[in-house]
Amino acid sequence: MMTVRLGIIGIGQQGGAYAGFISEGKVKNMVIGAICDIDPEKKAMCAEKYPDVPFFDNYIDMLESGKVDAVVTTVPHYLHPEMGIEALKRDIHALVEKPAGVYTKQVKELNEFAATKPDVTFGIFFNQRTNPLYQKLKELIDNDEIGKIRRTNWIITTWWRPQGYYDSSAWRATWAGEGGGVLVNQAPHQIDLLQWICGVPKKVYSNVKYGYQRDIAVEDEVTTLLDYGNGATGVFITATHDVLGTDRLEILGDKGKIVVDDSKKITIKRLNTPESEMSATMSMQDVMKIFMGGDVSDVYSEEVLEFESVWGAQHIAVLENFAANIVDGTPLIAPGSDGIHGVALANAIHLSSWLGKEVELPIDEELYLAELNKKIEEEKSLVNQ
Amino acid sequence: MMTVRLGIIGIGQQGGAYAGFISEGKVKNMVIGAICDIDPEKKAMCAEKYPDVPFFDNYIDMLESGKVDAVVTTVPHYLHPEMGIEALKRDIHALVEKPAGVYTKQVKELNEFAATKPDVTFGIFFNQRTNPLYQKLKELIDNDEIGKIRRTNWIITTWWRPQGYYDSSAWRATWAGEGGGVLVNQAPHQIDLLQWICGVPKKVYSNVKYGYQRDIAVEDEVTTLLDYGNGATGVFITATHDVLGTDRLEILGDKGKIVVDDSKKITIKRLNTPESEMSATMSMQDVMKIFMGGDVSDVYSEEVLEFESVWGAQHIAVLENFAANIVDGTPLIAPGSDGIHGVALANAIHLSSWLGKEVELPIDEELYLAELNKKIEEEKSLVNQ
Repeated sequence: MMTVRLGIIGIGQQGGAYAGFISEGKVKNMVIGAICDIDPEKKAMCAEKYPDVPFFDNYIDMLESGKVDAVVTTVPHYLHPEMGIEALKRDIHALVEKPAGVYTKQVKELNEFAATKPDVTFGIFFNQRTNPLYQKLKELIDNDEIGKIRRTNWIITTWWRPQGYYDSSAWRATWAGEGGGVLVNQAPHQIDLLQWICGVPKKVYSNVKYGYQRDIAVEDEVTTLLDYGNGATGVFITATHDVLGTDRLEILGDKGKIVVDDSKKITIKRLNTPESEMSATMSMQDVMKIFMGGDVSDVYSEEVLEFESVWGAQHIAVLENFAANIVDGTPLIAPGSDGIHGVALANAIHLSSWLGKEVELPIDEELYLAELNKKIEEEKSLVNQ
Repeated sequence: MMTVRLGIIGIGQQGGAYAGFISEGKVKNMVIGAICDIDPEKKAMCAEKYPDVPFFDNYIDMLESGKVDAVVTTVPHYLHPEMGIEALKRDIHALVEKPAGVYTKQVKELNEFAATKPDVTFGIFFNQRTNPLYQKLKELIDNDEIGKIRRTNWIITTWWRPQGYYDSSAWRATWAGEGGGVLVNQAPHQIDLLQWICGVPKKVYSNVKYGYQRDIAVEDEVTTLLDYGNGATGVFITATHDVLGTDRLEILGDKGKIVVDDSKKITIKRLNTPESEMSATMSMQDVMKIFMGGDVSDVYSEEVLEFESVWGAQHIAVLENFAANIVDGTPLIAPGSDGIHGVALANAIHLSSWLGKEVELPIDEELYLAELNKKIEEEKSLVNQ
């Protein structure tokens, strides 16, 4: 059995955590092949912590060193597509961090290039997809247990970040450095899960607050109205200023409803009869009987599933799945080409707020990029004042 | 002590319930003075059930009969303003049913006329304002217990109505007969409470679904994005097609959060330190400590209040408060002039969906009325085909 030698590009918080899992032998079929970082302090740290692991300060050198079979890109978002392409070009398997990029135009280039290399593994680090709760949720929806989706409401404001977090690096929460705020940095997990489980919205309208409760240029609160184009609607709400954060996802289908609380508990209510049929056959008197102290089991049955979350388990699962795909062709939980959907939705949410109107997906990529570049220019002139 | 003789205009489901409460002696300082209805069957029913109560088939005759000191208008929505004005004109106290009218232009006429009669009592039947839970909630907000409001999210889809309900009368769920669907008929309670407790939004954008899951011309689902004009934002979601209805109101303030579940339970989380101060002083390490198994009491305290709901109690409380205002000047819980806010918001939500863009409050009343009349004309031509 082959062992995948992983090159870690960027040994910051995430890269460091992955190095830890792998060096502790927690990731099946994977070892650290090399580490790369441009920061001399990181070099010194690695020399001490991982003395036997080759260190590079240039990722191209690492790709060409023969020391790595695969890489993970734990670097600023803008760099993910470029590094993914450079790796794949050399037949090095690539696991890109989320988001796949900042704007769809660059992610499309990555995807198009990856399509020319079908034998090289291309994955994206959507660790929440390995969360047993969301795997179960996807199974419930895919198995049509609550029927055709009518609505999705997700309030996910558990991404609290204090001002000190934003002040920790000059590039953080800037248009030039990150290309956005909560949509690009924290919420991509849920933006991916929503589409993975419930489908890709066709239109969005958003109210995005830039520097609302934090002294930053980018967004710290987002309210989005989703239109799935097939009748289904929804809202997606996220923020980094709610220290008492809410995480509540509600999915209404014509055969029932699912509520996910705190990414820990799934409550499934299955209707005995589809709603459309109840509507067609019941009178208001029948309705009153149920709601005024009637027996709800005449209407639906309820199931509650509780999940334990183990920190790190999801990340290890993604690394293992990536290695397994390389080693024996096990299907990827998060194929790299899936990354574009979340970026497209995040871009659409930004664009809607900039234009003050509803936008359709796919959005005009050139327009998005032009607007993003305007923000970057504005930011520069502020800094230079 | 004076006893208020109430004239009930329209003895349908609501009017009949009020007649029951009053005749059973449940409403302090109030008796039934007369009943009015245009339906001969109702006349026969009243002759049997309330043989001693004068019956009229014309409400103007009742107003001029000397038999009533006050009236309640349990009639189709469009008629509320006209009947309110005719009563007040004759110094008869008026309790109008919600909504105060269908469009603000007519409600404004009512309010303006009422303002010329400061000594005549003018109330509106917002029974939910007497609900102890919402009174407590208003007190919490007014007392600044969670600080300045940042967000309000209300999902209120407990208004399930089957197709049979809509088919029960020709005027129901039509533009000509009701002037709207869930916004005009069911949700006015919550639209009032939201503004009464959290303030009047300044801008709205909506996705309103007309005849989505029901065979009706008017709306059976509404998703609205609220902007309070002071930084605060929110969503308001309602529907009549969710038989597993959700009723969850979340209010985030800078000193805490309140969640109201099912109009039965208030959960208050009070921060030990305002969020803005936590943001200014805490590092990400401090944050991690709290969220990774730390003691949440270092951050907030939680209080849960449970309420029992008693059917009818709210309606009796409104009638009693109205009588008390007439008798001894007790302040009204729901002054009639408050009714315009809910109508204005409902109109704005409709208008935003018709124009496909965000609208500011107060909206252009003439434009709203022109658009509403278009809907009425379209409906006529459909019926006549």
